Amino acid sequence: MKFGGTSVADTDRILHVAKLVKKKFDENNKVIVIVSAMAGVTNDLVQKSKKISENFPADEYDALLSSGEQVTSTLLSAALQDLGIKSRSWLGWQIPIVTDGDHKNSRIVSVNSKILNDCLDQNIIPVIPGFQGLSQENRITTIGRGGSDASAVAVAKCVDADFCEIYTDVDGVFTTNPDIESKAKKIDKISYEEMLEMASLGAKVMQSSSVQTAMINDVEIYVKSTFTNNPGTQILSEDKISYENVITGVAYSKDDAKITLQGVKDKPGVASKIFKPLFDNNIVVDMIVQNISADNKKTDVTFTIKRDDLKKTKSLMEVLKSELEYDSILADDQVSKVSIVGAGMITHPGVAYKMFNALSSKNINIQVISTSEIKISVLVDEKNTKEAVQVIHQVFELDK
Amino acid sequence: MKFGGTSVADTDRILHVAKLVKKKFDENNKVIVIVSAMAGVTNDLVQKSKKISENFPADEYDALLSSGEQVTSTLLSAALQDLGIKSRSWLGWQIPIVTDGDHKNSRIVSVNSKILNDCLDQNIIPVIPGFQGLSQENRITTIGRGGSDASAVAVAKCVDADFCEIYTDVDGVFTTNPDIESKAKKIDKISYEEMLEMASLGAKVMQSSSVQTAMINDVEIYVKSTFTNNPGTQILSEDKISYENVITGVAYSKDDAKITLQGVKDKPGVASKIFKPLFDNNIVVDMIVQNISADNKKTDVTFTIKRDDLKKTKSLMEVLKSELEYDSILADDQVSKVSIVGAGMITHPGVAYKMFNALSSKNINIQVISTSEIKISVLVDEKNTKEAVQVIHQVFELDK
Repeated sequence: MKFGGTSVADTDRILHVAKLVKKKFDENNKVIVIVSAMAGVTNDLVQKSKKISENFPADEYDALLSSGEQVTSTLLSAALQDLGIKSRSWLGWQIPIVTDGDHKNSRIVSVNSKILNDCLDQNIIPVIPGFQGLSQENRITTIGRGGSDASAVAVAKCVDADFCEIYTDVDGVFTTNPDIESKAKKIDKISYEEMLEMASLGAKVMQSSSVQTAMINDVEIYVKSTFTNNPGTQILSEDKISYENVITGVAYSKDDAKITLQGVKDKPGVASKIFKPLFDNNIVVDMIVQNISADNKKTDVTFTIKRDDLKKTKSLMEVLKSELEYDSILADDQVSKVSIVGAGMITHPGVAYKMFNALSSKNINIQVISTSEIKISVLVDEKNTKEAVQVIHQVFELDK
Repeated sequence: MKFGGTSVADTDRILHVAKLVKKKFDENNKVIVIVSAMAGVTNDLVQKSKKISENFPADEYDALLSSGEQVTSTLLSAALQDLGIKSRSWLGWQIPIVTDGDHKNSRIVSVNSKILNDCLDQNIIPVIPGFQGLSQENRITTIGRGGSDASAVAVAKCVDADFCEIYTDVDGVFTTNPDIESKAKKIDKISYEEMLEMASLGAKVMQSSSVQTAMINDVEIYVKSTFTNNPGTQILSEDKISYENVITGVAYSKDDAKITLQGVKDKPGVASKIFKPLFDNNIVVDMIVQNISADNKKTDVTFTIKRDDLKKTKSLMEVLKSELEYDSILADDQVSKVSIVGAGMITHPGVAYKMFNALSSKNINIQVISTSEIKISVLVDEKNTKEAVQVIHQVFELDK
């Protein structure tokens, strides 16, 4: 059972979480608990670090931030003991949860399962602070990708848990964001792959890299709310799901920007020239579209990046102008990516047509299209985002 | 260099402390820093623990509270590095600072000096969170008696430091509390023994048990302010001080209470019968006075205890009534203990007379007298405290 920051935001909520854990334990489960820092605590520590130094050393940063989860784990362990359950906090360095890689961005390489199994054998519930580990140099590290979710999945894997429950402040994964489509429905079961493709929606619920780790290790996940009794959303292998719907959900992201290089000379090696400086500068490119040129001489290349990277990307492209001999560069940060995701679409023809037709019916222009096996994404004007999501949600009957 | 909670109360103060450490380091000193939790943090954690459980487990409590000092040590280490000084935080379990005894009340048994000396050899300033250690069971402990001061003295001892500086929010130890006697002067040098006897004044400045540890290990202490450039008060062996004043200071405490058993049968074993139940109940008895009875049959026994223990003490004495066959019991919590302290008084006759005469000149009644080699204490009505301190301070010319 992993509880996120809002689930343990104050002592009352921690007492509530203790009751949830007790209930699970009383139902004859062996339980390990992973906790995040109380909501707001990590931000407060980050603010303090910024006031101290703009170049706060990464190793001290990790020791600083890890204190947040440390506090929660002791409070929850005490709350459990107050309910008559045997429990103790196990800090990352005590288990240890061994990590590799740089500070602030470590990844878990091993978890000592013996200590945890010993606890479970004695009916002691270990409460583990998420997000933290121990380096080979005996220093506290924090887990860059996935944070406490990654801790939960790693621990679930190491003790071969039947499942890993991610408790959060929403009821699960929805067919789309309920804030922009009130008819959005909770999804009961979703595959790891779909969940990854739904990242823009799922990010609120669970870190993508942890979904990946769960997928690789076949750890079954339930995402559910700390505050309701709803069963939540189960994340599992595609082959364990019988798909009734053609698509599973409609995702969107609003932090994209689009660059078009017009009139690029169409010759071998052009694409690699364009994307090398982006790679060198750690700029993630999402969609890439290049059409065959009419006269085989010039073509347009369009790609999308994070909006934050737009300025830098544009200047990198301008440096290349003479080499690439393109005519002009267009930059647009008022774009939004709308995607339909669903493992079911592979066996259903006409899904793409249905999506494009829906958008057309609302006069929404499609700027760029990109597809994968279980996803079709289109780039639209940002102001059309809500209407696009709604009409697609309706056409595919996701509210049924 | 040890910095207390008010010295590191916020990030601005931590940046200030970093400058003090850099100055000391630039003056060709090898420096180790010990820090307390930022002011208010420990109280906040204690409050949280109380909201979780009235029986918060001691082991989890230690892991909870230790997070406060952990945060400060990482922030200060980062601040030092930002000033171009090599530094790193060394948490209690990393060094380790090994402790013994119960959780919440552990005492330091050893500090691994090798790691600290290695740092000093490489001009790396270790920043150590005070108040915390590691048990034989590999769990975080906190030091009950002396807290961060005890950590500082233990570390100073283990690396054989030339001196241990305790930075706080006052300029040092004063001849009496400046709040009630504006003419109180800062003491330049004071012996460990005097400092211990001045506990009621000194407690604000440094924990008594840490003074004791320093005395036993001959660790020279400077208490000084983080916020001024004053040289502070030096605490050292009596034999290194040449006493110019007859007494060093006037101390007082206002949390005492007095119990008198009237008409106790004067026979062997009475005293032990009175004080055994107090010992059994962990009640600390301070002054004890028993006069020889006029007829060798009945006597009055008076003793003082902490005011908080009065109710319990009274009921313990009432249980003994039949066994002790005393006539009546008097309890008074409106008393105050006023003491003069000074190693110089041994060689100066008439000190006691001078003190009593001063009190008499103000019509202040002395209820109980108790003396040690370097201290004379009297119990007076609480409402006379201020006047008593002032007249004694004046008579012994402590303002000169």
